[in-house]
Amino acid sequence: MKKEASKKSIINPWEVSGNVNYEKLIKEFGTSKISEDIYKKLDKCHPLLKRRIYFSHRDFDKWLEDYHKGKKVSVITGRGPSEKMHLGHLVPFLVAKSLQEQFNCEVFIPISDDEKFFVKKDLSYEKALEYSKDNILDLIALGFKPGKTFIFQDFVYTDIYKYAAQVAKRMTYSTAKAAFGLTPENNVGWSFYPAVQAAHILFPQFHRGKHRSVVPVGIDQDPFIRLTRDVASYPEFNFEKPAALHAKFIPSLHGSVKMSSSESASEGVIFLSDTAKEVEKKIKKYAFSGGQATIDEHRKHGGNPDIDVSFQYLKMLFEPDDKKLAKIESDYRSGKLLTGELKEILIKKINLFLKEHQKAREQAKKQLDKFLVK
Amino acid sequence: MKKEASKKSIINPWEVSGNVNYEKLIKEFGTSKISEDIYKKLDKCHPLLKRRIYFSHRDFDKWLEDYHKGKKVSVITGRGPSEKMHLGHLVPFLVAKSLQEQFNCEVFIPISDDEKFFVKKDLSYEKALEYSKDNILDLIALGFKPGKTFIFQDFVYTDIYKYAAQVAKRMTYSTAKAAFGLTPENNVGWSFYPAVQAAHILFPQFHRGKHRSVVPVGIDQDPFIRLTRDVASYPEFNFEKPAALHAKFIPSLHGSVKMSSSESASEGVIFLSDTAKEVEKKIKKYAFSGGQATIDEHRKHGGNPDIDVSFQYLKMLFEPDDKKLAKIESDYRSGKLLTGELKEILIKKINLFLKEHQKAREQAKKQLDKFLVK
Repeated sequence: MKKEASKKSIINPWEVSGNVNYEKLIKEFGTSKISEDIYKKLDKCHPLLKRRIYFSHRDFDKWLEDYHKGKKVSVITGRGPSEKMHLGHLVPFLVAKSLQEQFNCEVFIPISDDEKFFVKKDLSYEKALEYSKDNILDLIALGFKPGKTFIFQDFVYTDIYKYAAQVAKRMTYSTAKAAFGLTPENNVGWSFYPAVQAAHILFPQFHRGKHRSVVPVGIDQDPFIRLTRDVASYPEFNFEKPAALHAKFIPSLHGSVKMSSSESASEGVIFLSDTAKEVEKKIKKYAFSGGQATIDEHRKHGGNPDIDVSFQYLKMLFEPDDKKLAKIESDYRSGKLLTGELKEILIKKINLFLKEHQKAREQAKKQLDKFLVK
Repeated sequence: MKKEASKKSIINPWEVSGNVNYEKLIKEFGTSKISEDIYKKLDKCHPLLKRRIYFSHRDFDKWLEDYHKGKKVSVITGRGPSEKMHLGHLVPFLVAKSLQEQFNCEVFIPISDDEKFFVKKDLSYEKALEYSKDNILDLIALGFKPGKTFIFQDFVYTDIYKYAAQVAKRMTYSTAKAAFGLTPENNVGWSFYPAVQAAHILFPQFHRGKHRSVVPVGIDQDPFIRLTRDVASYPEFNFEKPAALHAKFIPSLHGSVKMSSSESASEGVIFLSDTAKEVEKKIKKYAFSGGQATIDEHRKHGGNPDIDVSFQYLKMLFEPDDKKLAKIESDYRSGKLLTGELKEILIKKINLFLKEHQKAREQAKKQLDKFLVK
């Protein structure tokens, strides 16, 4: 509760800190609030959508309209591969998967090993390739539909260069510099990458022809969406402007607004490869609690689920049943449910998920061919 | 003779004008003069080498040494594809071919359709691809050895992106800007291209492992060679620094120092697709003459072969026989040979060459598979 309450809010693609006023962000970024009407149409989707972790959009109403008219629609969401994926990384993919399930649409997943290689000084080319391979297995393990899901890594599916080049021709260094915060001492791969990223977002249309595609992203990434929407409408492309669904920031275990693996290495995050013991230890030790300092006080005053990371994780990721979640919330708020008990519920849920995930990941090794773009 | 004599000499990769002091250039660029010893070892090579149109080098002595020690050596020379190739474009390829013949080495020919696409505002992606295909036929028609010659265009052999990315990581925007004269209003493809070009020069080593490769280039291109030599020695590559052979500027028909198709569109240059009639007309009308204003004066004072474009073309490209060339030179200098007669000799030679070339170009269409890198 004390955390960062007095800090000024800073939101841009490189930095997220302070308390976030999401209503204000919608105004600042010029996006649209997701309406009740839209939420109603997403009733079969992942809790991340239904429970309004995704709160803002661009043209997603048109995407739904196109779908209901029988037009082709798709989802595109990429990944900058890292050594190991953690729970926070799953957010856009869970949303993509549930859109695929509800709307039976294609999903495109570019893996930007090039970006990581350009941006991370000490990351070797070989390591960048390795991380891609590792992360692709985790993505396939989530259960995307084979034949309707297209994964590619830039250093293997190098045809992305043809598309990126076409975008690059229409993007000045000044523009890329402003959108990505480039400095003259950054390498020229980094200068080029904004064009690659735009090509990723436009890839469904390069690959499958003109149609509306939606990108689930953190709201901090919206400047790149805006940039790409400008590119899409140039006459040589004549593409649909990509739609976007914007998420709030997912807290790390410590409760800071954006979960990141750099924050405190292995402590602030649950990796998909963590053992049950590691999960238990991390949640018990690090998951920021909205409960009171003593059991007596907790029974008397109750906890605050709004800032309790364990509750937020259940809400966002691990308790799809609305009734069960409501009961946990009211019990916690009333003081009936203790922090330790709440954490136990979450630990069980995460470990169940990870057990299945780790099994599915082994299976994924045999399914690569069904998912990789050739 | 009156042309540009008073102009200050300007030499950089974007501009060549004025009278050129090649000795001074060697000093300025920090390259080496090609020694008598080296010329002796090139006795079976193209007149462009033997007659010292190539006058400067970097590490070509080491390249020859490696060859004589039985080590692998190769040649790399690229082409920025244009609508139609002209005689001036052939210079580095004729040299590459003759090095391949004398030293039985591999030749690598990258076709930078990406560069042309990035740099030429009005060039469409489709046209860039088309020009590449067109130019590749002309290059194959020159008679390179199949199985020892590797041609690739960046937008088709997109694996070049993997190599360019590895170079790009080690090239800052500042460096690229300085070497290529970039401005912030240039597109990000243009910013990235210096890394692609370095990857082209290093391609023989990326593709075939560490060995010494030589690049025949105009002396104005040396800054890019220097840049690439720096990159080659980074520990993650551990490549040999590429060697270079530097050519003087090839005059256009008008006699200006660098033959370029932009100079006066179709008039200052002989295209490989020109008809015999077009060649005759262009040489008669535009080839800058070192002869006197009237026949009487010419008989009396003689002509100046040193500035006579027709003579220079014979010397550089079309009269390999030293004795015949010496006779033409002395007859012209004495006034025995008139400008019209000299031009007739050249016209016949060019048309003989073009007739064979145009036939070979048709044959080349069936040979693409033997030359294109997959």
